[in-house]
Amino acid sequence: MIVINIKEELQSVAVKIEELLRQDTFVAEIKPDFLRDAVCDYPLRGGKRVRPALALWTCGCAGGNPDDALYAACAVEIWHNWTLVHDDIIDGDDIRRNKPSAHASLAAVGRERYGLNEVEAQRFGRDFAILAGDLAQSRAFAMLRRTRELVSAEVMEKISGKLLAAGAVGVISGEALDVLAGYRHAASDEELEYIIGRKTSDLIEFAIYAGAVIGGAGEELISDFEIFAQKLGEAFQLRDDVLGVYGELETFGKPIGSDWREGKPTVLRNEALKRATAAQKAEMDSLWRLPEYDSEAIARLRTVLKDTGAKAAVDARIAAAGNETFKALERCPDNENREKLMVLSASLLDREI
Amino acid sequence: MIVINIKEELQSVAVKIEELLRQDTFVAEIKPDFLRDAVCDYPLRGGKRVRPALALWTCGCAGGNPDDALYAACAVEIWHNWTLVHDDIIDGDDIRRNKPSAHASLAAVGRERYGLNEVEAQRFGRDFAILAGDLAQSRAFAMLRRTRELVSAEVMEKISGKLLAAGAVGVISGEALDVLAGYRHAASDEELEYIIGRKTSDLIEFAIYAGAVIGGAGEELISDFEIFAQKLGEAFQLRDDVLGVYGELETFGKPIGSDWREGKPTVLRNEALKRATAAQKAEMDSLWRLPEYDSEAIARLRTVLKDTGAKAAVDARIAAAGNETFKALERCPDNENREKLMVLSASLLDREI
Repeated sequence: MIVINIKEELQSVAVKIEELLRQDTFVAEIKPDFLRDAVCDYPLRGGKRVRPALALWTCGCAGGNPDDALYAACAVEIWHNWTLVHDDIIDGDDIRRNKPSAHASLAAVGRERYGLNEVEAQRFGRDFAILAGDLAQSRAFAMLRRTRELVSAEVMEKISGKLLAAGAVGVISGEALDVLAGYRHAASDEELEYIIGRKTSDLIEFAIYAGAVIGGAGEELISDFEIFAQKLGEAFQLRDDVLGVYGELETFGKPIGSDWREGKPTVLRNEALKRATAAQKAEMDSLWRLPEYDSEAIARLRTVLKDTGAKAAVDARIAAAGNETFKALERCPDNENREKLMVLSASLLDREI
Repeated sequence: MIVINIKEELQSVAVKIEELLRQDTFVAEIKPDFLRDAVCDYPLRGGKRVRPALALWTCGCAGGNPDDALYAACAVEIWHNWTLVHDDIIDGDDIRRNKPSAHASLAAVGRERYGLNEVEAQRFGRDFAILAGDLAQSRAFAMLRRTRELVSAEVMEKISGKLLAAGAVGVISGEALDVLAGYRHAASDEELEYIIGRKTSDLIEFAIYAGAVIGGAGEELISDFEIFAQKLGEAFQLRDDVLGVYGELETFGKPIGSDWREGKPTVLRNEALKRATAAQKAEMDSLWRLPEYDSEAIARLRTVLKDTGAKAAVDARIAAAGNETFKALERCPDNENREKLMVLSASLLDREI
C-alpha cells in the first residue's frame, strides 16, 4: 500500500504546468500587450490542475513516463481556460477565481488606459476577451503539437484528432446546449445527459485519452481508461448539481441555489419534476427563479427535493457512477500512478476508495 | 502566351472548395442544429475565393499538383470566415455579403424559435455566434490536417506551424490593433504598418506558403513566394484604403467614407496629416467622424487628401508594392499556374501586368 498525499502530488503537477506556461513562446509575438496578458492570465490563476494530473498519471499508469504527457496536460489546461474566457462573456460573470474575469479586466484597460466611458469600456472588454479566447484556442493546439518531439506520428495523429472531436465539437456543443437550456429554462433528460457527457466529461476524456495513448496503452486499456473518464465526469457533474443545493458556500465556491436563481435545469430538478405530487410541484414552482435564495428558501428547496425522492435518486446515480469509475481503474495496471488516480478520484467524489 | 480567363479560373476553384465544404464531416456532430448551420454558413456564402486560388496556383507553380493544396486552401477559407464571424460581433455589423451576419441570423433563431424578447434575442445571437466562431477555428485545423494524407510529416509540420504563427498570432494581433485603433481614433504609422502586415497579409502569406511547401518549393523559391505574398497584401490593403475614399459604392461594396465616419485611421489619413497646412488640417478635422458622408463631404475629402499630396504618396506606394509583387512572381517558375497568379494579382490591383 502506497500512501499518497494528494495535495502534494497535485502541487507538484501545478509547478510543472506553471513553469511550462511561463516559458511558452507562442504568446511572445501577440500584440497589444494587454491582449497578450489576457491570453496568459486564466491558466496562471491556479486551480487544482485536476485535468493535467489525470493526463500525467494516466500516462504513467499505462507504462509511460508521466512527463511525456506534459505538453498534452498543459494543452488541456489552456483549452479549459479559453472556454472559460468565452463562457464568462456569455454568462456575464465578472468574477473568475476571485479576480475580475477576462472581459472585466480588459474593460478596466479601456477605462483606465484609453479613457473610455463605461459603455465603451464594457464593449472594449468584450471585444478583446473574444480575441483573447480565440488566440488561446490556437495556443492549446500549439502546445499539444510539441508532443511530436516525444511520440510517433501515429500517436500525434490520435491525440490531435481527439482534441478536435472531444475538445472542440464535444465540449463546445455541450456548452451550447447548456447555454440554450439557460435561455429555455428547461431541458429534456436526454439533453441534460448530453450536456454532462460533452461539456464536462469530454475534456476529462481527452486528458485521460492523451495520457493513455502517449503512455503506450493498447486498445483494451484505452477503452478501460475511457470508461474511467466518462464515469468520473458523470459522477463529478452530478455531485456538482447536488452540492449546488445541498453544499455550503465556503466549500462549493458558488452561491447555493444559483442554478435555480438562473433558471438552469439540472438532473436533480428533472428527477424531482418527474416524481412530484401536485403540491410538491407547486412548491418547486414557487422556488424557481427567485431573485434571491435566503436560508429559508434553501431549506424548503432541500426539503422538497428530498421528499420527492429526487435527492436519493441522484445520490444513487452518483454512487453507481463512482463505483464504475473505480471498477474501470481496477482493470488498469496496478502501480503508483494508478494509486494517484484512485486517490484523486476519491477526493473529487468526496468518498472513501 | 497563355490566355487566362480569370473569372472562369476562380469559378472552378470555388466549385472545388464548396464541394469540399459540403462534404466535410467535422460539422456532423455539432449540436444544436442552428449552431451547426452557423458554423457552415459564412464559407458557403460565396466570395471570390482569392485565398484558396492563391494556395492552389502557388502549389502548381512550384511544381506540385494544385489539388494537393485543396485541404489547405479550404482551411484558409474557413479560417478567414471564422475571423469574420467574430469581427462582425466586435464591429456590430449586421450584414455580411448581403445577408444577416452570423449573430443577427442567430438572434432571429432566438426570437422566432424560442420566443425571446429583443434584448434576450440579441444576447442569444452574440452568445451562439461566439461559439460558432470557436468551432469554426477548430474546423480549420481539422481541414488542414487532412493534407497529411498527401504530404510528408515534415511538410505537414511546416504548414501547421505557419497557420499557428501567421493565421493565429499574426492575423488576430493585427485585428486587435485594428480594433484598438478604432477605439483610439488614432494609430501611429508603425501600428498601421503592423495592421496591414498582419491582419491582411498574414493569411494571404499562409495560403501562398502552404501552396509553395506542399508543391515542393525549396527555400529560395519559398522566399520569393513570401515576398510575393507580402507585397500583394500590402498593395491590396493600401488600394482598399484609397478606394474607401475614391471608389464608388457599387464596386467597392462598402459606403464610401466609412473609415472616416467610424474614426478609423488609415495610411492615407496619416500621410495627409503629416503633410497638411494648418488650413488643410482644419478641413480634415471638420471632415472626421461625421454622422454621414454626402457627395459634398466626399468631394471635399477627396480634394484635401489630394491637395496635401497624400493621395499621390499612397498611389506611389501601391505602384511600388505592385511592382515588387510582379518582380517576385517573375523569379518563380514560368508556367500556366504562374500566369494565373499574375493575372489574379493584376485583377486584384486593377492594373495591367
